[in-house]
Amino acid sequence: MTTQTKNIYPAIILLLLGALVIVFAMLAMDRADSYVANGESHGSQSEGGKTHKVYEWSLVTTWPKDFPGLGSAANNFSRYVNDMSNGRLKVKVFGANELVPALGVFDAVSSGSVQAGHGAAYYWKGKIPASVFFTSVPFGLNAQEMNGWLAYGGGNELWREIYAPFNIIPFAGGNTGVQMAGWFNREINSVEDLKGLKMRIPGLGGEVLTRAGGTAVSIPGGELYTAMQTGVIDATEWVGPYNDLAFGFQQVAKYYYYPGWHEPGSTLELIVNKEAFEALPADLQAMVELASRAANQDMLDEYTGRNNSALEELVNTHGTQVRRLPDDVLALLKKYSEEIYEETAAKDPTFNKVYKNYKAFGEQSKAYHLISEEAYYKARRAN
Amino acid sequence: MTTQTKNIYPAIILLLLGALVIVFAMLAMDRADSYVANGESHGSQSEGGKTHKVYEWSLVTTWPKDFPGLGSAANNFSRYVNDMSNGRLKVKVFGANELVPALGVFDAVSSGSVQAGHGAAYYWKGKIPASVFFTSVPFGLNAQEMNGWLAYGGGNELWREIYAPFNIIPFAGGNTGVQMAGWFNREINSVEDLKGLKMRIPGLGGEVLTRAGGTAVSIPGGELYTAMQTGVIDATEWVGPYNDLAFGFQQVAKYYYYPGWHEPGSTLELIVNKEAFEALPADLQAMVELASRAANQDMLDEYTGRNNSALEELVNTHGTQVRRLPDDVLALLKKYSEEIYEETAAKDPTFNKVYKNYKAFGEQSKAYHLISEEAYYKARRAN
Repeated sequence: MTTQTKNIYPAIILLLLGALVIVFAMLAMDRADSYVANGESHGSQSEGGKTHKVYEWSLVTTWPKDFPGLGSAANNFSRYVNDMSNGRLKVKVFGANELVPALGVFDAVSSGSVQAGHGAAYYWKGKIPASVFFTSVPFGLNAQEMNGWLAYGGGNELWREIYAPFNIIPFAGGNTGVQMAGWFNREINSVEDLKGLKMRIPGLGGEVLTRAGGTAVSIPGGELYTAMQTGVIDATEWVGPYNDLAFGFQQVAKYYYYPGWHEPGSTLELIVNKEAFEALPADLQAMVELASRAANQDMLDEYTGRNNSALEELVNTHGTQVRRLPDDVLALLKKYSEEIYEETAAKDPTFNKVYKNYKAFGEQSKAYHLISEEAYYKARRAN
Repeated sequence: MTTQTKNIYPAIILLLLGALVIVFAMLAMDRADSYVANGESHGSQSEGGKTHKVYEWSLVTTWPKDFPGLGSAANNFSRYVNDMSNGRLKVKVFGANELVPALGVFDAVSSGSVQAGHGAAYYWKGKIPASVFFTSVPFGLNAQEMNGWLAYGGGNELWREIYAPFNIIPFAGGNTGVQMAGWFNREINSVEDLKGLKMRIPGLGGEVLTRAGGTAVSIPGGELYTAMQTGVIDATEWVGPYNDLAFGFQQVAKYYYYPGWHEPGSTLELIVNKEAFEALPADLQAMVELASRAANQDMLDEYTGRNNSALEELVNTHGTQVRRLPDDVLALLKKYSEEIYEETAAKDPTFNKVYKNYKAFGEQSKAYHLISEEAYYKARRAN
């Protein structure tokens, strides 16, 4: 029996040693996983976080990489989700033409060849005429109203509905605030001065100008400065003081006209491929949604802060002449804008559906903001 | 030797069994933690998430629980961080007087007896006169400008600086937009009509009214309706159409005056105890910051969307008479407001420091928004 015992003990010890090794290995694997998942973490390793799948997204944009203002939202979004997810959702931002051309962003996200994109909905109006309402339309909602309409007026639901067939989920991802009417080398004193005006103005604004007798031309951003300098065009719109000053338009244009009737509160978009979004766990989905909301807010904050000082510099340092478009010009442009909405609505049921909702919200906003925001702007100038 | 061997084997077996139990227990604890941590999770358990410490915060507010508009930001903040953190940061919201009185919020967060609070900075002006600039001041910045100033004009840095001695980190946590001037049972046709006016109007607005010959009275919200009905007061300010309609002021007041000169863009605050914030890992800190930013945006969106339809209902259904304060009244109120700023700045160096920064940003905003947002509001009414 002692001999038998002698034979059994080592076997039990080996068995136990084996079990110990296995269990210890399991523990070690668990711990090791946490270091992989938290490769870019800023502190939660000490909390013992572990074993999270890492999602890597490519985000393509319609702007050049790191473009001031417009391009900052994609970078902010990437940083926000990285910081909040401890690196579980990594979003690599590509500028226009790095992965796909600027106007290839929508298709790339739709097909799933990339997971996300940043741009402006009105770029896709050839595909979806109603998309214009989700950026900005002539005489439409300003930034505060756009945000209100999207979140509380049914705008986001409509936006999701019209993008659904393309496998894309849209989020508001920035706002420029009301833009300037643009840089002109011809004085606009009456509606007559619009006739023959050669102006770089894209989208619906361009259609309106054409109806008023002008010529809307399409020129890439990189060629605008020279086109203004050489007189190829008489005028161009861009964004507002912050971007325009950096561009140097004050060197090649005589007059800086306001207000930006054609883009009163341009919303940018963050678009996400549906399958890519649905593949995320719910916490990362929440981060995507809230990071886009913070990026949306941040861009308007940046423009609000920086347009202020840029306008001051344009006027005080560069002697820029700031002019207001005359009332009759604005009234005519508004009339033609409304004609275009009605005509398009009659042809396109989706456009009509979005237009009706947008217009009803706009009428209420107009009534309320007349006695609130607008009345306040006027009141604080009281002497 | 066989005897010795017989004696040693059981000891080794016991030792190994013990080690196995300990290692197995460690593994089990790790796994168990993950289920505790993810008690409210929405899916990341399947990702294998585990062992995260759960932080439980109490958030006290200066509003009644679930108060429409003002109270929604705290609830949204709580939901946002819970969703994004998978329940690792749980924020329980308490209405006024549930844990501490409304005006005890700041002290409770400062002392660390609770981790967070939601209210308005100007409630603490007795302690910190400069705090008024972080909510709203008469003839000051509107919502868009407040957000721009805080994020890109140095506002947030100053806010953190003045709250630092109190162990509190502030974040913008909502905005009402410009408010209405209030409900009146006396017509205001000239500055003479301000004399003897008994109005419920707190803060700096009340000081301004007093200087203009009125009597600023302090009445709790719950007693306002009766005070207006019985003529104890001639007028009261509240918020704007959405909140005011729900309150029923249209039943006890003749005139609804605009614009809200005294609160042109009231920012609410989310305040966090410094140690509580610093105890969080970096990812949860990022969530707190970005959730507050999203909540900040959401409140303005909600007011923008809901004030619209509420004004329509007040006018069309209840026949509310909407009136504008006359120019000379606005000019006088503005003059007295500026006097108060200058006098307080002369006495309080911190007030002076914040005022100078705020004022400089305000002057630039005034110049830019005159040709942008204000000019646009006017332009779109063109006929």
